[in-house]
Amino acid sequence: MPGPAGRRCGAQGSGWPAVRPIQRPAGTIAPVAEFFDVVLSQRATRRFRPDEVDDATVAKILTAATHAPSAENSQPFVFIVVRDPVLRAAIGTLTARLWEGGARALETGRLSPALMDEVDRGARGGVAAAPVLVVVCGDGRVTFAPTLGASVFPAVQNLLLAAHALGLGSTLTTLPVLAGPELSALLDLPDGVEPLAVVPLGHAATPLGPPRRRPLAEKAHRDRYGVPFLPEQ
Amino acid sequence: MPGPAGRRCGAQGSGWPAVRPIQRPAGTIAPVAEFFDVVLSQRATRRFRPDEVDDATVAKILTAATHAPSAENSQPFVFIVVRDPVLRAAIGTLTARLWEGGARALETGRLSPALMDEVDRGARGGVAAAPVLVVVCGDGRVTFAPTLGASVFPAVQNLLLAAHALGLGSTLTTLPVLAGPELSALLDLPDGVEPLAVVPLGHAATPLGPPRRRPLAEKAHRDRYGVPFLPEQ
Repeated sequence: MPGPAGRRCGAQGSGWPAVRPIQRPAGTIAPVAEFFDVVLSQRATRRFRPDEVDDATVAKILTAATHAPSAENSQPFVFIVVRDPVLRAAIGTLTARLWEGGARALETGRLSPALMDEVDRGARGGVAAAPVLVVVCGDGRVTFAPTLGASVFPAVQNLLLAAHALGLGSTLTTLPVLAGPELSALLDLPDGVEPLAVVPLGHAATPLGPPRRRPLAEKAHRDRYGVPFLPEQ
Repeated sequence: MPGPAGRRCGAQGSGWPAVRPIQRPAGTIAPVAEFFDVVLSQRATRRFRPDEVDDATVAKILTAATHAPSAENSQPFVFIVVRDPVLRAAIGTLTARLWEGGARALETGRLSPALMDEVDRGARGGVAAAPVLVVVCGDGRVTFAPTLGASVFPAVQNLLLAAHALGLGSTLTTLPVLAGPELSALLDLPDGVEPLAVVPLGHAATPLGPPRRRPLAEKAHRDRYGVPFLPEQ
């Protein structure tokens, strides 16, 4: 389903610098990275090495997350940094149960075989094997509940990008939050705080290729839907 | 309500490089920027100069947006790049009507006076005065509708960050989408495609200060809610 790398398609001779893939030597954390290199090479990591990620690194990543915008600057994001192996295993079990209990069947035939294989490994323990799982929640007590998605997923994206900028792998998963009450109980979430995503952090077990994206021309319209933003060249 | 700058709070001696504010000289577009400088200095712009933003720049920004992750890599984001002055004025009128017709009263007393003043100016024409309004939509025909927020707002965040990296101002607004059917009619959106955000792009009329964020210690927990991730130092 996914087409060729979108960078090529969207650029269309508009003077992009060449994108340097961000592949760090094992165990190294780079302090700086060029913005567009980070954004244009982001990929989902679903297989992790057991190597630790220290608290200072997690704090840098979460600080980046807190700098995302939110409705009324209400900052309704809540991050539960899960390192406890028992809790991580419980989240993994819950995820695998949701996957085998319906989500897998729903996805079969919708995903390419390669992506299905990746997602399958991830849902059956790959994601939960990361040394850190960040459960990102929305606090409905501090803003209007209908805006929680608009106020929390930008922070999740900052989190993912910051991890990538520092040479770590991660991925945005929402499957475990389908068992919201169970997940909330595991993490002692108070009423009004709901889990919206689970993001693993760790060192990727295998190098990742470039992201696969549809060309911008398929996604962008000029003034009205159906009028291409980018005319044929 | 917002506290002191979160960068200080979250960093807590963990070796952050100093953050350089991104303030370009008028009219210049920088091709590159350091990732954490961009992320940690992002602010909402609600007052714009009339100066144009060319198509190549918009394409760069939207290409960054398309590189965000989405459920099943379904890429359900749709961008309507609105330059037509009549359409921009119509979106501005619609926004002002929603603001005066209820949203303003709802926000009064919830926002600090300074933020209220900013939001008030933005909703009453400031945002619509930007030379480009990007209406970001979710295409419910290509993925499961409940995941649209998780699959579209990361792209919106990439859009905002890329604009900032290039020295442009923007802000994430969701007020106009409360009049979804009316906005959809203006933009000829087909059934199944729903507007989720309106993001102005332009040159900021005034320099912006640092973002105001709650300290990370208030937002991050260890393993369970209520256990601080960052102990007192």
